[in-house]
Amino acid sequence: MAAISCSASDLQPLLGAAANATAAAQYICGRFDAVSNKFVDTAYAVDNTYLLFSAYLVFAMQLGFAMLCAGSVRAKNTMNIMLTNVLDAATGGLFYYLFGFALAFGTPSNGFIGQHFFGLNKFPSQSFDYGYFLYQWAFAIAAAGITSGSIAERTQFVAYLIYSSFLTGFVYPIVSHWFWSADGWASPARADNLLFGSGVIDFAGSGVVHLVGGIAGLWGALIEGPRIGRFDHEGRSVSLRGHSGTLVVLGTFLLWFGWYGFNAGSFLNILKAYGESGSYYGQWSAIGRTAVTTTMAGCSAALTTLFGKRLLSGHWNLTDVCNGLLGGFAAITSGCSVVDPWAAIICGFVAAWVLMGCNKLAEKLKYDDPLEAAQLHGGCGSWGIIFTALFAKKAYVDEVYSGQPNRPYGLLMGGGGKLLAAHLVQIVVIVGFVSLTMGTLFFLLHKLKLLRISSEEEMAGMDVTSHGGLAYVYNEECNDPAMLKPGFVVSRTAPPSSAV
Amino acid sequence: MAAISCSASDLQPLLGAAANATAAAQYICGRFDAVSNKFVDTAYAVDNTYLLFSAYLVFAMQLGFAMLCAGSVRAKNTMNIMLTNVLDAATGGLFYYLFGFALAFGTPSNGFIGQHFFGLNKFPSQSFDYGYFLYQWAFAIAAAGITSGSIAERTQFVAYLIYSSFLTGFVYPIVSHWFWSADGWASPARADNLLFGSGVIDFAGSGVVHLVGGIAGLWGALIEGPRIGRFDHEGRSVSLRGHSGTLVVLGTFLLWFGWYGFNAGSFLNILKAYGESGSYYGQWSAIGRTAVTTTMAGCSAALTTLFGKRLLSGHWNLTDVCNGLLGGFAAITSGCSVVDPWAAIICGFVAAWVLMGCNKLAEKLKYDDPLEAAQLHGGCGSWGIIFTALFAKKAYVDEVYSGQPNRPYGLLMGGGGKLLAAHLVQIVVIVGFVSLTMGTLFFLLHKLKLLRISSEEEMAGMDVTSHGGLAYVYNEECNDPAMLKPGFVVSRTAPPSSAV
Amino acid sequence: MAAISCSASDLQPLLGAAANATAAAQYICGRFDAVSNKFVDTAYAVDNTYLLFSAYLVFAMQLGFAMLCAGSVRAKNTMNIMLTNVLDAATGGLFYYLFGFALAFGTPSNGFIGQHFFGLNKFPSQSFDYGYFLYQWAFAIAAAGITSGSIAERTQFVAYLIYSSFLTGFVYPIVSHWFWSADGWASPARADNLLFGSGVIDFAGSGVVHLVGGIAGLWGALIEGPRIGRFDHEGRSVSLRGHSGTLVVLGTFLLWFGWYGFNAGSFLNILKAYGESGSYYGQWSAIGRTAVTTTMAGCSAALTTLFGKRLLSGHWNLTDVCNGLLGGFAAITSGCSVVDPWAAIICGFVAAWVLMGCNKLAEKLKYDDPLEAAQLHGGCGSWGIIFTALFAKKAYVDEVYSGQPNRPYGLLMGGGGKLLAAHLVQIVVIVGFVSLTMGTLFFLLHKLKLLRISSEEEMAGMDVTSHGGLAYVYNEECNDPAMLKPGFVVSRTAPPSSAV
Repeated sequence: MAAISCSASDLQPLLGAAANATAAAQYICGRFDAVSNKFVDTAYAVDNTYLLFSAYLVFAMQLGFAMLCAGSVRAKNTMNIMLTNVLDAATGGLFYYLFGFALAFGTPSNGFIGQHFFGLNKFPSQSFDYGYFLYQWAFAIAAAGITSGSIAERTQFVAYLIYSSFLTGFVYPIVSHWFWSADGWASPARADNLLFGSGVIDFAGSGVVHLVGGIAGLWGALIEGPRIGRFDHEGRSVSLRGHSGTLVVLGTFLLWFGWYGFNAGSFLNILKAYGESGSYYGQWSAIGRTAVTTTMAGCSAALTTLFGKRLLSGHWNLTDVCNGLLGGFAAITSGCSVVDPWAAIICGFVAAWVLMGCNKLAEKLKYDDPLEAAQLHGGCGSWGIIFTALFAKKAYVDEVYSGQPNRPYGLLMGGGGKLLAAHLVQIVVIVGFVSLTMGTLFFLLHKLKLLRISSEEEMAGMDVTSHGGLAYVYNEECNDPAMLKPGFVVSRTAPPSSAV
Repeated sequence: MAAISCSASDLQPLLGAAANATAAAQYICGRFDAVSNKFVDTAYAVDNTYLLFSAYLVFAMQLGFAMLCAGSVRAKNTMNIMLTNVLDAATGGLFYYLFGFALAFGTPSNGFIGQHFFGLNKFPSQSFDYGYFLYQWAFAIAAAGITSGSIAERTQFVAYLIYSSFLTGFVYPIVSHWFWSADGWASPARADNLLFGSGVIDFAGSGVVHLVGGIAGLWGALIEGPRIGRFDHEGRSVSLRGHSGTLVVLGTFLLWFGWYGFNAGSFLNILKAYGESGSYYGQWSAIGRTAVTTTMAGCSAALTTLFGKRLLSGHWNLTDVCNGLLGGFAAITSGCSVVDPWAAIICGFVAAWVLMGCNKLAEKLKYDDPLEAAQLHGGCGSWGIIFTALFAKKAYVDEVYSGQPNRPYGLLMGGGGKLLAAHLVQIVVIVGFVSLTMGTLFFLLHKLKLLRISSEEEMAGMDVTSHGGLAYVYNEECNDPAMLKPGFVVSRTAPPSSAV
Repeated sequence: MAAISCSASDLQPLLGAAANATAAAQYICGRFDAVSNKFVDTAYAVDNTYLLFSAYLVFAMQLGFAMLCAGSVRAKNTMNIMLTNVLDAATGGLFYYLFGFALAFGTPSNGFIGQHFFGLNKFPSQSFDYGYFLYQWAFAIAAAGITSGSIAERTQFVAYLIYSSFLTGFVYPIVSHWFWSADGWASPARADNLLFGSGVIDFAGSGVVHLVGGIAGLWGALIEGPRIGRFDHEGRSVSLRGHSGTLVVLGTFLLWFGWYGFNAGSFLNILKAYGESGSYYGQWSAIGRTAVTTTMAGCSAALTTLFGKRLLSGHWNLTDVCNGLLGGFAAITSGCSVVDPWAAIICGFVAAWVLMGCNKLAEKLKYDDPLEAAQLHGGCGSWGIIFTALFAKKAYVDEVYSGQPNRPYGLLMGGGGKLLAAHLVQIVVIVGFVSLTMGTLFFLLHKLKLLRISSEEEMAGMDVTSHGGLAYVYNEECNDPAMLKPGFVVSRTAPPSSAV
């Protein structure tokens, strides 16, 4: 492949007979240098456009979480859960700026924890720009959002503030350092000493984001115990239905929309040729493929859940289909960039059954997770990590994780068991580290009586007890004294009792 | 226009007196080749960025449809209609991957149906990349979404699964092949044998998407008949109002937002000069103009409806304004790229009256379409097809449909009647083909008693009978036994009867 | 820095000894010219991609406004306020196309008002393309949206139509001409005669958009007076809570999402090197930084409000946190591109207290603004204007407002008081001009009895009196006669009175 870079000292002898060969060569090469520089500018502009809009999409997932969570809890706790979602973004912004980003990506560093760029000091640099920070921040707040679902409807607000800051500012950054930083001990981007000669391929974070959030939620929910009424006195499961299916669908679709930024955006740049420059095939194509595998995994998981639940429960259940869809996304997030669409369909199919199985198990164990977050993000996330180790395709692994030839790839694709070994290690260390940190934190909060609200508060709902009132006021009488004037008649959303 | 491509054999004689003219020429030209290749990479990166984010916007329309549909039906059928919207995307994903895309764009092929790329086999290629598939998938699911509106609140779920798969996987792909594939018999991109020397200019699919979805819905709704209570026993029209104006507005705005991806995105790429390279005018400009014409048509239709309905009904009606707006969009979708903004204002003005007229007619004929989908997408879509044939501007047609000089253009712009003839053919064949296929399918389902639910189910609402419960639980008493403990008082969203 | 442009007459003598030096030079330079032109095309494509998607994001803010407004009013006025939001976009589209854009950006012109491009005549040109119009339209409709919040729940619909057209088509365009047009008397882009040698740095419009909308709303709300029941007969403040916290959060997050288009998008193009071409640092980096400062200001304002209101009211109040967040955004909008993230955190911190202070003052003065729009957009917007004059950094000011060296910058950064002087002038003239125009208009409407609805209408709610019915129908009995058939039992969203 020819390069644009032009050397006057090379060109001058070739033009030796020219009137002023040296000047001619400099003249010509100077222009090529300018062209080369202009291409650098162009690449920065294109790649930052791609990355920034991807970041905005990932941010939109926070809105998706808020709506999904709101719809999945009872009306009396709506304000509470939405406030946690808004604050995930806000506290996450501050803490990730102050030290989270530094702990995650502060290279050069050791394999365990980063150590530069606190408060975005020395930003931007050749390696890191603001768009990258924004993108990573949007990821960080997603993890905390997952956890808040597991412990919804029964957690003290102060406990929430504490664990959320700790997770976004400390636990999540460290885990992301291990797998995503150029220095991380299990990163596939290390220069040498790759874990099992491979490192972990967790492209957009089935492990780093979803498993982390899910395991944190698992410990929170386990330590708090189920909501009052979730299991009756004979131990039978009682469904405490969320208050709005519309919000569940709104949230699910927004998460789907944002997931394109999450998975396809994780390439970080799009202007990169694979092999020969000038061909139709390059990173842009891999990005498109990643958007397609993401779509396919979700679709396949949704359809599997639709028919699976129909067989099991007799209903065509919308909420379950939404959760199945999200389970498919959580699973494909790890391997989205290195598998083919047909494999993504398998990924989603299995993810749906993993979720249904985890939910069955949770019910047996009297584990109560209002959003099924531990099951969905933890269970399907773990499956996704294994799936990648089975189905990663050689060509795609070499392209997406270039720089080192002959990397291990998927076991079922003939790539041997090294990737699988690395991925099993990932599951073990994430479960272990998050249990150690977040589990301990939740246990301490529990011992300090800071974790769970009183049963009176739980019955009344936190919106009334902590947040100044319910989310909805559909009847004016409640708060508008003028409406109580006798003789004044309005058509209302709920009929008076005499109408029944 | 000078080209970048540099031929060493051309340059060498010019440098003949140089010390090593051949090597000098190769040296210089090699660098120009590299520059040229780098521009190819850049164009792929820029165009795929543009196309992928456009695809995400089009996908967001599915969320828009879901919210619009949910808000437009009664509360008791909310889960049902939203489930169909989620499944449009999911089944659409699977079927369009397996064969829909192949039937639509599988060139080389005959003019009627495509025949390559089943299961995205041999993807990507010089002609087709994953981003293009994603974009087309997002279009395909829109058509099914339109139809589900027409037959809302009374259709068996199994019937829905059948027609939706058939429409997305078979009917819609074939129609899109005719007008959008390079081989389609009515495509403006054919190398020769253009229909009326022109082919059909249905840029983003007033016909291919909206008319197809509308006519399918028309047959479904006609065969099912109106919802119980929609016309009283004296035949008077009774409005069965949707349960949430908020969701209608949410859905409408999301559709507006996504429509920029639908119309402006249909250029597929943005890095393309028109005429001379290096000028401010190129495809980027035509794309901006398309976004503006789309906006203008919607705005004009909304305002026309506002004042029109005020005159007719005495109210400033929000739902009607939303539908008018969408009617304007459905109409401009065909010609958005080849007309001026002032023409788009006319397009929207007429679309509003077309919609009001169709609704009047539907009422007279006792045709019940809960979303006005056949009227809006079928009626305004048809108007849009004709509008394009009247107002398409010569310069824009030549730029957007380049490669063949002196194409026919809008009748009122002096371009003769050939484009209009082609467009009338488009309306006829779409109505005919969709009636033949989807009409027959709905009729068969009807005969097999698979189409309409029982009147008991219709009264109770499908959410209760088929989907496991209502969408909303605003009162905890309904599902939380703990709340019934005597003596426990909470402020609630609906007041107890004693408060009245 | 070397340029790509290649002059054959310069190169020819250098190649003088070549066989055909003139032809060789032309050959080589012709190719460089082509390269140069291709870069022009590329820049247009990249910049328009950036600008168009930013415009779509800004448009999404209109949906955010609609949801925020809807959730913040009582259920009985939901349709009314949402209709105003839809119409802001629609009438705005028409009027901004016809003359708004021309009045704002119609250069060459005088410093007070633009005078070209009415109806987008002579579009596109070297200076202005359709994407730019779309972007500016999305800004224009935001201002009207702000005002409609202040006068919600008590304003005649006709009054709304009048003031909204006047604001979007006339008042806002003139103000934006002053500060943003190349000819504006206070614009920082003027060739000479800069106001205080500086001009006003109102990058994305804390003044031009937020202060304008806020002051307009202030006069409307002042002249109309408070809603019935907002202050009891002893003058105590009574909270008239909005009907849906969910919609408030939905709207807030959508505004956050769209604000990235508003602030970071205001650069208008992204492919621009700062200083040397070929470096990692350029406009793409400044754009990322702007997205980060925007985020930080919002996060800091949200957290400040959370703890501030907790101290003041004892609650963790979600609605207040949302408003605080938006106040932080409104404040940072002016200086987002020229300050560091740490300064943005200060900006948000102060904005939160400004908003809480303004709300306290409003309560004392019995000023009723259902959306706190005058306080939020007017108060925090004003603070933002001052903040910029204090914290603008020299390096950033020179880069973002290039072309003139040694501009004044932030007072606290050592840049002297000239910028502050200019910014104080901005506040004074905006308050003055908007008061003169919009204040007079509202006063005239008031005198003509066209402004406020009757107290009967206000009690009943405008949805019933003017818009054909309430937004919500959760109980089928209300509009479905079939449901009243005796003996038919359905599970319902609201329990019958006997269940209590």
